Amino acid sequence: MAVNLPLPVASELKPVAGIRLGHAQAGIRKSGRKDVLVIALAAGTTVAGVFTKNRFCAAPVQICREHLTTHQDHIAALVVNTGNANAGTGVPGYQNAQTTCAELAKLLLAKPEQILPFSTGVILEPLPVDKLVAALPQAIANLQEDNWYNAAEAIMTTDTQPKACSRQVTIAGKTITFTGISKGAGMIQPNMATMLGYLATDAKVSSGLLKKLTLEAADASFNAITIDGDTSTNDSFIIMASGASGLEIPEAGPVYEEFKKVLIEMSQALAQMIVRDGEGATKFITIEIIGGKNTAECQQVAKAIAHSPLVKTAFFASDPNLGRILAAIGYAGIADLDVSGAQLWLDDVWVAKNGGRHPDYQEADGQRVMKKAEIKVKADLGRGQASHTVWTCDLSHDYVTINADYRS
Amino acid sequence: MAVNLPLPVASELKPVAGIRLGHAQAGIRKSGRKDVLVIALAAGTTVAGVFTKNRFCAAPVQICREHLTTHQDHIAALVVNTGNANAGTGVPGYQNAQTTCAELAKLLLAKPEQILPFSTGVILEPLPVDKLVAALPQAIANLQEDNWYNAAEAIMTTDTQPKACSRQVTIAGKTITFTGISKGAGMIQPNMATMLGYLATDAKVSSGLLKKLTLEAADASFNAITIDGDTSTNDSFIIMASGASGLEIPEAGPVYEEFKKVLIEMSQALAQMIVRDGEGATKFITIEIIGGKNTAECQQVAKAIAHSPLVKTAFFASDPNLGRILAAIGYAGIADLDVSGAQLWLDDVWVAKNGGRHPDYQEADGQRVMKKAEIKVKADLGRGQASHTVWTCDLSHDYVTINADYRS
Repeated sequence: MAVNLPLPVASELKPVAGIRLGHAQAGIRKSGRKDVLVIALAAGTTVAGVFTKNRFCAAPVQICREHLTTHQDHIAALVVNTGNANAGTGVPGYQNAQTTCAELAKLLLAKPEQILPFSTGVILEPLPVDKLVAALPQAIANLQEDNWYNAAEAIMTTDTQPKACSRQVTIAGKTITFTGISKGAGMIQPNMATMLGYLATDAKVSSGLLKKLTLEAADASFNAITIDGDTSTNDSFIIMASGASGLEIPEAGPVYEEFKKVLIEMSQALAQMIVRDGEGATKFITIEIIGGKNTAECQQVAKAIAHSPLVKTAFFASDPNLGRILAAIGYAGIADLDVSGAQLWLDDVWVAKNGGRHPDYQEADGQRVMKKAEIKVKADLGRGQASHTVWTCDLSHDYVTINADYRS
Repeated sequence: MAVNLPLPVASELKPVAGIRLGHAQAGIRKSGRKDVLVIALAAGTTVAGVFTKNRFCAAPVQICREHLTTHQDHIAALVVNTGNANAGTGVPGYQNAQTTCAELAKLLLAKPEQILPFSTGVILEPLPVDKLVAALPQAIANLQEDNWYNAAEAIMTTDTQPKACSRQVTIAGKTITFTGISKGAGMIQPNMATMLGYLATDAKVSSGLLKKLTLEAADASFNAITIDGDTSTNDSFIIMASGASGLEIPEAGPVYEEFKKVLIEMSQALAQMIVRDGEGATKFITIEIIGGKNTAECQQVAKAIAHSPLVKTAFFASDPNLGRILAAIGYAGIADLDVSGAQLWLDDVWVAKNGGRHPDYQEADGQRVMKKAEIKVKADLGRGQASHTVWTCDLSHDYVTINADYRS
């Protein structure tokens, strides 16, 4: 049950010139479903990525990092499989990811180093690389620019629906297209869900600038629903810029600012879709922390609230048991936090004033907000000017059901 | 549904000379149940405590810390109420806890500073101090040494049963009694459950030594089911030594060692009972991390596994989806962890060897272990000699039900 997550309409997902997508059914885990996606990039496309910091990162993540380091300006294609994460698979797993790259490279007349591989699914099981390789020609056969909806379907795991969005804007008189897809969806501690995001644009962006912008966009989106160093084995977010529109993005100025703004908004939309489709989610929660000494401590507090199972179950139950939020602020790890300067709001309701229950707070007001499907928690730490926002969802019975039965 | 948690038998809970317990029904949250406990201490009893590090610590915790600093050798009584945590209650909350101490002190002809107050229950709601104070004479009227079973019942919140244990040992020719009680019980992230533990002995222990021993016992027990700095608003663990047996514990030597051993075993028993009665628990999980560079990093990894909702739901489902454990090791925050040196066992089954699936690992073997009610996860980080053990439970549908409905 997703929270206010619109089903994408295939005809509204604009093709991005220079970016072709092809899908296949490889039967990696289950038969009769799309489980392979190839994204082929026109020459001149720049690519940048942000990856999990998990030390048990999957073999494909290691290879993506290597290939992006050496061939950032010359990536020919991305290949994604679902059903198996190729993580915790040791040397054979690494070899299987290399084989995938080599076989796709052969078919595309490229070098293996020009391929970026991605996997998502069950950890610790050998990747059935033969099935994956056998399906590549099928994916290549249907490569086309107008194939984003199928692409969004092909990368789904426990997602209840495909996630995609698209936008066209006019910058400096030129029409620029942005289209992207993403997948989740375990959300109780977002660090453990594999999140994949792919965002394409036809603007022309130098590889150095794209790298910088991708980091910035990830911090404001995918990293705001997960933690640095606390990510799954396979999390990856990729931005591709084909340059086909002819509009070159400079390193500063109004064109740069406008482009960056849309890029971040698109990244946030793709990231928030993952939260809205969080496993078993019934509520979409925005957690905004203000008044911190620095962004890091605001993030720390926001994540403590977002990860608290007691807070999350209270949201599920629409129960204004708001002391649980105060408790999470208190144990978030700010050793010198003076709680007598802390304030808490639930939407427009001022719940805690100077560390204690606000004298005017009525449980009925808290109850009114808790019943909503979208709720904002705002806390002021009262010790500085920094702020940070995180998005999360509640913890429901369905979360347990989904994750207890995931492999069956 | 508790996991292998024996119901205490009242007649087996040995009185500890010098320690009297009295209970009352104050109707703080619900009527018709014991919700107040007074523990009265004979003169000469030493007391030491370990408390939550939550910055939103409850008013009674602040007062306990103050009173123990100034009157560690002269504590006259402890008073515990359930139904209300008196946390997030600001200045009025602090005053209510002071009032409680003052009123009990009056009745016992002591000073308010000689009283240690404790509260557990809902956060952010005003403590109905009048009801609590009105019930104190009732508790005092039934003060007796042979009242541990009622005491264990009086401190329960979502616990499914009272938790208590008792042991008599002969040290240096003298019979020493240890009796204790504890309460939990939210366990998905133990940091958020209020845990209370009270352990009494009739050995004679100087207040300095008792303080040291209490810290050591807490680290090996209550802190091994929670995190420093990640605790609830009210967590407290108290050890009381009446000295009535006449056996004085020296600061070193065989008598000291024997006493410490039993003290730690009793503390572990009380702490593990909380896990065995974790909200919705169906499995008792021991997580042992070895081969770390230091204890802190072993603890970090053990807690990452213990707190992972994906790991916990897999245990609930008896699903050997063991890659989730590797993922948790990987994101635990050891930045330079070389996973190619890591090993993982589930009971006697060697699951992952040198960072990848063990070639001989069969899912049937993992499945066999996962079906058990008590499971040991053991990981070797392969980078040193340090180790640490943590106890936790699984995450079931009942956890969500209990916490979604806690206040109804």
